[in-house]
Amino acid sequence: MARPMGPVRLRRTNYVTLTIGACLCLFILYFLVQDGSDVSITSSPNADSHPIRKPATAKSKLIGDRSPVRRFNLNNVTITPDPIENQEVVLILTPMARFYQEYWDNLIKLDYPHELISLGFILPKNKEGNAATAALQAQVTKTQKGPLKDRFRSVVIERQDFDPPILSQDEGERHKIENQKARRSSMSRARNSLLFTTLGAETSWVLWLDADIIETPPSLIQDLAAHDKPLIVPNCYQRYTDPETGKPAERPYDFNSWQDSPTAQELASKMDPDDIILEGYREMATYRALMAYMADRVDERDVEVPLDGVGGTALLVKADVHRDGAMFPPFAFYNLIETEGFAKMAKRLGWAATGLPNYKVYHYNE
Amino acid sequence: MARPMGPVRLRRTNYVTLTIGACLCLFILYFLVQDGSDVSITSSPNADSHPIRKPATAKSKLIGDRSPVRRFNLNNVTITPDPIENQEVVLILTPMARFYQEYWDNLIKLDYPHELISLGFILPKNKEGNAATAALQAQVTKTQKGPLKDRFRSVVIERQDFDPPILSQDEGERHKIENQKARRSSMSRARNSLLFTTLGAETSWVLWLDADIIETPPSLIQDLAAHDKPLIVPNCYQRYTDPETGKPAERPYDFNSWQDSPTAQELASKMDPDDIILEGYREMATYRALMAYMADRVDERDVEVPLDGVGGTALLVKADVHRDGAMFPPFAFYNLIETEGFAKMAKRLGWAATGLPNYKVYHYNE
Repeated sequence: MARPMGPVRLRRTNYVTLTIGACLCLFILYFLVQDGSDVSITSSPNADSHPIRKPATAKSKLIGDRSPVRRFNLNNVTITPDPIENQEVVLILTPMARFYQEYWDNLIKLDYPHELISLGFILPKNKEGNAATAALQAQVTKTQKGPLKDRFRSVVIERQDFDPPILSQDEGERHKIENQKARRSSMSRARNSLLFTTLGAETSWVLWLDADIIETPPSLIQDLAAHDKPLIVPNCYQRYTDPETGKPAERPYDFNSWQDSPTAQELASKMDPDDIILEGYREMATYRALMAYMADRVDERDVEVPLDGVGGTALLVKADVHRDGAMFPPFAFYNLIETEGFAKMAKRLGWAATGLPNYKVYHYNE
Repeated sequence: MARPMGPVRLRRTNYVTLTIGACLCLFILYFLVQDGSDVSITSSPNADSHPIRKPATAKSKLIGDRSPVRRFNLNNVTITPDPIENQEVVLILTPMARFYQEYWDNLIKLDYPHELISLGFILPKNKEGNAATAALQAQVTKTQKGPLKDRFRSVVIERQDFDPPILSQDEGERHKIENQKARRSSMSRARNSLLFTTLGAETSWVLWLDADIIETPPSLIQDLAAHDKPLIVPNCYQRYTDPETGKPAERPYDFNSWQDSPTAQELASKMDPDDIILEGYREMATYRALMAYMADRVDERDVEVPLDGVGGTALLVKADVHRDGAMFPPFAFYNLIETEGFAKMAKRLGWAATGLPNYKVYHYNE
């Protein structure tokens, strides 16, 4: 009945992930900013007891406080359109291959209360990643030593080996169609590792923010949260200098936020289940409706469109969507991968994606 | 180009998950057992600084300890066949509808060092769940006040509403084929919520252990880990009294650990993608090779078989498998769901499942 005994044969892709265990290397910077309030541990005077850590939640309510041994923390974590009023914790997650000062400066300018923002980063363990980690650590230290209002709730920096390396290609290489599946599979693993490691009981929202997003409105978090959507994504553009006029201009950058088309569905139906559809390649015309091209009215920033795929350059997600199990598929999932596969998976869990075509964030121009 | 504007229409299953946000209710019991060592927070004497929490890792190494503001914790988390020697943290996760004293007593008897074991529970927010929570809390308190060697590293108890309620049916109702998909989908969400909330940077292994597993060898964790497999599952049996002889006997209980069959694959190929194959139902003969029936030699407890589906009554998983993104699909995934879908998802990520047909754990007999 049973197959031949003996060790299980390892599968094709196993070597990719086997390296993770050996190389998972976590630098954790833990800064708690609590307006000077007591976040200390109470060592009981009772010899029979042992110290207890009090979780750093702004709204934790202690029960059984008199006990020398136990504390019960009752968290009523809310996820509402008014997250500041309700003191909701936002976890900003950023996979980072290169450190851009403009990214950090923009992050600092976010006017959501910083004591409610936790930061999580994942960087590859290669030369470029080392340089980025050093630069990031320097800025984290500076900020966490700086004015109280700038300091973040906590910062976690994760280092992770991947084979093939994540994110370490330059712009030209990175976008080659044949490199996309491997690149986005690695990127998915990085996102998942970061997510599974940092998402906590107190998290209400997760803001995915790529390391090359260098300009957003300071009110980004509360603006997006106000829509009260499970997944919501602004439009990612890029500023450049028009070579003809020499004047500043802008162009769409992220093409992963889209509404599905019969052509793309037809394409998928003929594909091997392991193949993926990619957006923005002439070789693979999908005729999907791309949010990148839906921006029309500067004065109507709150216009919503339903989406079937989302990009991850800036993406606000209710923490419960992830808690339900929605992650970034590193494999072809309905012929989709990474953030686009995530939108599909969320949809299968009953959570729909929304786009804001006129609400813009800007990508670094390499 | 865009579809009509306005709020995104909610999907069929959304009501199930919408309740989670509103009702996510976390009781957190945080007990740190560190052999009396200092786990306190240091408040800097510097007025410019703020308190810092020192994570509770047995092997954390402090860098920059002199800084009033920052601490860098470098964790080199290993996942090895000798987890005790390498001080690896095991997270035991248990979805619980009813509290069985025998479950707790068996847990206490595990001889893996308790200071390396973190516990996580999720219980439904209904009457039965309230009773189970109260009983569980009482035992947790007793244990954490008891002898140092019995105390666990940390305990997290999560309360969560689900519609339909998880696990709250009795044996007969629970196994009805038409109830299985909804039940196992809810169970998946419970497992995912527990996993996403509790998995941390320090976790090396995750042991899924159902609340009705009342007897395992005390060396369960190290026995399973010694096989050095990404996913490994013992054989779940049930003790009973033979009605004919009146003598103690045992019978197979969990049929979710299996090797795939051409019949089951043929069955799946004709199914709607949203339908699921269930094991152990006469109406749906799969002719899969079930591990439940492979137990043959008591004296060969370490015999391994490769598996395509796994049960979750007792299941040891390397934390990196989850970090890669492997979760419990609450939707049909290759016509599989929950733990069986998890095995399939892990396999797609390159991690194979292994079973130990002769290594037995025992389920409560209702």
